[in-house]
Amino acid sequence: MKLADLTPRHFLWRMEGEVAVIRLDRPERKNPLTFDSYAELRDTFRDLAYAEDVKAVVFAANGGNFCSGGDVHEIIAPLVGRDMKGLLEFTRMTGDLVKAMIHCGKPVISAVDGVCVGAGAIIAMASDIRFATPQASTAFLFTRVGLAGCDMGACAMLPRIIGQGRAADLLYSGRSMSAEEGHQWGFYNRLVPEPELEAEAIAYATRLAQGPTFAHGITKTQLNQEWSMSLEQAIEAEAQAQAICMQTRDFERAYRAFAAKQKPVFEGD
Amino acid sequence: MKLADLTPRHFLWRMEGEVAVIRLDRPERKNPLTFDSYAELRDTFRDLAYAEDVKAVVFAANGGNFCSGGDVHEIIAPLVGRDMKGLLEFTRMTGDLVKAMIHCGKPVISAVDGVCVGAGAIIAMASDIRFATPQASTAFLFTRVGLAGCDMGACAMLPRIIGQGRAADLLYSGRSMSAEEGHQWGFYNRLVPEPELEAEAIAYATRLAQGPTFAHGITKTQLNQEWSMSLEQAIEAEAQAQAICMQTRDFERAYRAFAAKQKPVFEGD
Amino acid sequence: MKLADLTPRHFLWRMEGEVAVIRLDRPERKNPLTFDSYAELRDTFRDLAYAEDVKAVVFAANGGNFCSGGDVHEIIAPLVGRDMKGLLEFTRMTGDLVKAMIHCGKPVISAVDGVCVGAGAIIAMASDIRFATPQASTAFLFTRVGLAGCDMGACAMLPRIIGQGRAADLLYSGRSMSAEEGHQWGFYNRLVPEPELEAEAIAYATRLAQGPTFAHGITKTQLNQEWSMSLEQAIEAEAQAQAICMQTRDFERAYRAFAAKQKPVFEGD
Repeated sequence: MKLADLTPRHFLWRMEGEVAVIRLDRPERKNPLTFDSYAELRDTFRDLAYAEDVKAVVFAANGGNFCSGGDVHEIIAPLVGRDMKGLLEFTRMTGDLVKAMIHCGKPVISAVDGVCVGAGAIIAMASDIRFATPQASTAFLFTRVGLAGCDMGACAMLPRIIGQGRAADLLYSGRSMSAEEGHQWGFYNRLVPEPELEAEAIAYATRLAQGPTFAHGITKTQLNQEWSMSLEQAIEAEAQAQAICMQTRDFERAYRAFAAKQKPVFEGD
Repeated sequence: MKLADLTPRHFLWRMEGEVAVIRLDRPERKNPLTFDSYAELRDTFRDLAYAEDVKAVVFAANGGNFCSGGDVHEIIAPLVGRDMKGLLEFTRMTGDLVKAMIHCGKPVISAVDGVCVGAGAIIAMASDIRFATPQASTAFLFTRVGLAGCDMGACAMLPRIIGQGRAADLLYSGRSMSAEEGHQWGFYNRLVPEPELEAEAIAYATRLAQGPTFAHGITKTQLNQEWSMSLEQAIEAEAQAQAICMQTRDFERAYRAFAAKQKPVFEGD
Repeated sequence: MKLADLTPRHFLWRMEGEVAVIRLDRPERKNPLTFDSYAELRDTFRDLAYAEDVKAVVFAANGGNFCSGGDVHEIIAPLVGRDMKGLLEFTRMTGDLVKAMIHCGKPVISAVDGVCVGAGAIIAMASDIRFATPQASTAFLFTRVGLAGCDMGACAMLPRIIGQGRAADLLYSGRSMSAEEGHQWGFYNRLVPEPELEAEAIAYATRLAQGPTFAHGITKTQLNQEWSMSLEQAIEAEAQAQAICMQTRDFERAYRAFAAKQKPVFEGD
């Protein structure tokens, strides 16, 4: 499957080499999500699992903001009054976006600027790597619209990124986490001035895209599925997973390059 | 069930609005725990799960100290020489206090000052949020009385709050963690000068008490029970939990307030 | 079983009181691992579980470096072209070293200086406590030899030590973590100038060796096996484990010393 020429209707998509760059496209409203953009993102990340021409993904900001979460008028209004079947349909669709990101087989790097709240904060959280500008302001603000902090996996994922105590504060209070806090706590891997943010995220993604991408896919799988294994199960799972990677040609390419004192050129198989 | 008028025998209890404030009451001995106070705390936190008039709990210091742990004369002395049945009875009772705190359905904020050791450190650890003064000195000192670091859930909970390596240091050595370390490591959410500590913890609890308290209860449940789920199980669990919250009136209240550009008034249903 | 007089063929071993000090012994090549040293380390850590004369282990640097990982010529070369049975045999042996370290029943303190990469980084990670010099440079560089980040338990253990986001960065990129980063993130418990590193690690290990070593063994067991338990299961497991420790004489020794206002002398039973 090839996705380079994708022309999504509800968000922006472009390729930078083998890196796909996604941006939401309503900057005048700080890029809210709608039912349509949720569904199209979910489908796109599902397709990414099979895409041979995309090796990494950057989820970027647009117009100074990352994402303002579910649109009050287009999402929250229709949800008020829905019956349980309809509500679960919605919360499962949003959860399916996170599942699709986790299972897409490619590293996802979020480049966060400005507003990054609600489902936007979740998209950042569900990425593998997060860069941000000093202006990034991230809030898991579900509690402020009368909901619980447990949205799209937040009670499971956020504690593993920043620790249980800090996660509890953010999820109960719905308060904003500053870029500085996020960096100190391990939510952001790097703070970058706004003018360089997107380029730096793409550069990081490009380095991964030029690496052993089959192995990166295995890294992603194991990082996500060893959470609920015992230590012994995880060690056995890694013995199997790494043995698989040792049969790739990239492993042999690396060895031959080292033996020849050259830089290895990986091809992802 | 109503608890506002509770008159416990072995600790202090008062209401600040809908926030219950608990303090141990032997300041001249830095507030040790006894068999009686353990049991009464356990029973109170169990009752809190059904209390309609308490929305959040602050566990505060008294006389410059939080808690000096199990009393040497009243707890450790009688334990020496007990048979296994009697010992397990005790360790299960202490564990039951932690379980009761976790299942009480309300956010618990610890306000730590001075000595916070042994079972006192565990009470702080088992809280959702922790504030401390710069004078707080916390030690999981079980090892110093010849015991293991695994007390009342410490080997499970502490690593998730501050990381496995730092937890191992504290639990093996029994050494004190300074307030500064605790803040940097994510054990304490905030450092507060002593004169403001209790008021600030109550203010934080009050904000939560004025929020969507039904949803907060769900946040607490999910924060604690997703630890041992796979990521996929957690996401599905949150889809269900959040759909439940979307049927509360608080969700509708928030939407109507936002549409009317007003501040929502939550009622916890 | 007694191990004090061990004379291993593929690494250095000496006793400092009841602390075993292990060092790899090819400093001119920054101490790479070979099939032989992997296997002998695994067997030694397995024996340590039964050794009565060793109470703690220090894994130290040698000649300014900790360990350069699997040797390119002696390990990677023969692996290229092995069939799956042969590969899995190798990855399981390396995983067995981590399992043996985890189950050896004694605290392991790594003292990291200089190069600490690949399987060397894993040995540090699988230790209970980690000290380092400011010159320590640690890289989980598997990706740079065409492999996945999931090696010997890294995708399970590293996120619990430094958080999921920072672990993802290190495991995808294979980049070096500086000593300063490692300390700030909780990978290193302490930074120590090179001249004092080994002595300080031995002093820490000695204090543990003079403590309630039976209880320390239980701490280690629980720290490792509660990862995949629910919170309730963990609390019950600790109630049982601590009740066992309350039947040791060390618990009684501690009580009697406290009652007599003396310093307890533990004997590990």
